[in-house]
Amino acid sequence: MANIKDIARLAGVSVTTVSRVINGHPYVRDDKKAAVLRAMEETNYERNINAVHLIKGKTNLIGVMVPSIKRPYFGLVVEGIAEEALKGNYKLVLIQTNYEEQREQEALMMLKLKQIDALIICSKISDWDIVEEYAAYGPIIAFEDARGRNVSSIFIDHYKGFMEALAYLNGKGHRKVGYCLARKSGTSSKQREAAYRDFLKSSGEPFDPDCAFYDAIHFEDGEWIVQRLMTMQDPPTALLVTSDQVAAGILACCNERELDVPSKLAIVSFDNQPIARTLNITTFEIPLTEIGRDLFRKVMTKEFFQQEIPVRLIERLTV
Amino acid sequence: MANIKDIARLAGVSVTTVSRVINGHPYVRDDKKAAVLRAMEETNYERNINAVHLIKGKTNLIGVMVPSIKRPYFGLVVEGIAEEALKGNYKLVLIQTNYEEQREQEALMMLKLKQIDALIICSKISDWDIVEEYAAYGPIIAFEDARGRNVSSIFIDHYKGFMEALAYLNGKGHRKVGYCLARKSGTSSKQREAAYRDFLKSSGEPFDPDCAFYDAIHFEDGEWIVQRLMTMQDPPTALLVTSDQVAAGILACCNERELDVPSKLAIVSFDNQPIARTLNITTFEIPLTEIGRDLFRKVMTKEFFQQEIPVRLIERLTV
Repeated sequence: MANIKDIARLAGVSVTTVSRVINGHPYVRDDKKAAVLRAMEETNYERNINAVHLIKGKTNLIGVMVPSIKRPYFGLVVEGIAEEALKGNYKLVLIQTNYEEQREQEALMMLKLKQIDALIICSKISDWDIVEEYAAYGPIIAFEDARGRNVSSIFIDHYKGFMEALAYLNGKGHRKVGYCLARKSGTSSKQREAAYRDFLKSSGEPFDPDCAFYDAIHFEDGEWIVQRLMTMQDPPTALLVTSDQVAAGILACCNERELDVPSKLAIVSFDNQPIARTLNITTFEIPLTEIGRDLFRKVMTKEFFQQEIPVRLIERLTV
Repeated sequence: MANIKDIARLAGVSVTTVSRVINGHPYVRDDKKAAVLRAMEETNYERNINAVHLIKGKTNLIGVMVPSIKRPYFGLVVEGIAEEALKGNYKLVLIQTNYEEQREQEALMMLKLKQIDALIICSKISDWDIVEEYAAYGPIIAFEDARGRNVSSIFIDHYKGFMEALAYLNGKGHRKVGYCLARKSGTSSKQREAAYRDFLKSSGEPFDPDCAFYDAIHFEDGEWIVQRLMTMQDPPTALLVTSDQVAAGILACCNERELDVPSKLAIVSFDNQPIARTLNITTFEIPLTEIGRDLFRKVMTKEFFQQEIPVRLIERLTV
């Protein structure tokens, strides 16, 4: 296999020149650079494809930092990103972090080391200060509220969205509202829980921990939620559910047990996935796949960009 | 920023030695190699992280060749792969191919160029000859039937599975059976359709093209399927559905229109996703997420491995 010396001989330049080309050194004459690249190609200088990437300044790899793609919420965002990547023939490097700072750092380092052309952060736990620092090395966009920060972002104000939903149910006469969240420690869950507590405070109602249902993620979680509701002495009259999948599961189990929706239990969910339309579930739209597509498109422009996506109530038959 | 010359000076070796280390040349004295690696570390020789990867012979990146992750069938396999990757702190490079040979070739090239440590093929259209050729460069495993080929694989015999399902419905007295497939041109769809035609031939029944429902992929596809069934003069008495999600959607729409399942329409699906358990759908289990986990684990052992995963009938209430 060819090494740097062979390339140098073939290109008629010094080893130093080859190494300069490989290292993207600015002071290399164009004709020499061209000769080196041609020699690399001719000798099938394969193991250093990464060096070639460095020269071109492009890897065609886009990093996606995501806690875990098993969470449908992130799965849908990644689907949107993947759709755009497929169109543009980009490959995605999935860096799953499980919300561990060390792993988030690894994703940021990949950008710094030019192993990826850009980084999309679906959710993170690291400080914005750290993200801002790395934003100097290449395009970063986050699906988190980065207002006041020098990081591009497309985001949902989950606090505001939850407040809107609570006000909507309150307006419909519901005084005791339960809520189903995914991971208690997730960024959006924290915002939503804060909204819930603030809403109770402003309406002078006490907080009942029994009204909180955590780790409600999949359709099948509807089963235990309905079971728990049915054992409660004073159950909530309405549920705020942060995923249409879970809401659909709850609805299916209510139908099975002849617990009438909405007269006995009103259900409002989030996202407006197709299943919500099919089952006529009242929901607040968060276009996750669309957002994924936008994250990809915007990070590719390399321009600073911040946009809040408003949630939008879609009234159907479950309230 | 440090270049190769700086590294050489710091390590007390020649530029040639540094380039040898970078290129993984075998004839470098261990102490010199160590000095070079130390110098690289000290100078924060970042842009050549890829070169360091080459020396270690490891990138911690695993390639995943997949037509598109938007298809739930592949989405579930990728979820399983991602779960194991998360545990082992590997990153995944998603190479979506849309069944284009050129893109499949790119994925195989990444393995040859050592940009990834191993390649998992979820589905492909290229000849096995081509895949076999690249298997010489690094570990490859396919989620396709590679019997008789020198490529590791974990696979479902979809022809056999569909035959079993048809025989089961036939045994229950169903003479006219419809079937819902995802993409008509997909590898598994072709095997399933061949089984369907062979089954009809062996039982002397004619093929009715109205019994085929293509592009049935998501829950919401249940809606148009049931609509079409209701306009048919002589509709099938049973449906074979290749995804629990679609079966669930069909069931929900049947319930809404008071079309009784199973007396008016029997439903058998595939996969046994949790939604099938919740809605009591009779299904043939294909443990896609589990298979994804296994694909990852097996490709990491680098050992040749072939295994057929049998489908398993789980009788519930829709037949």
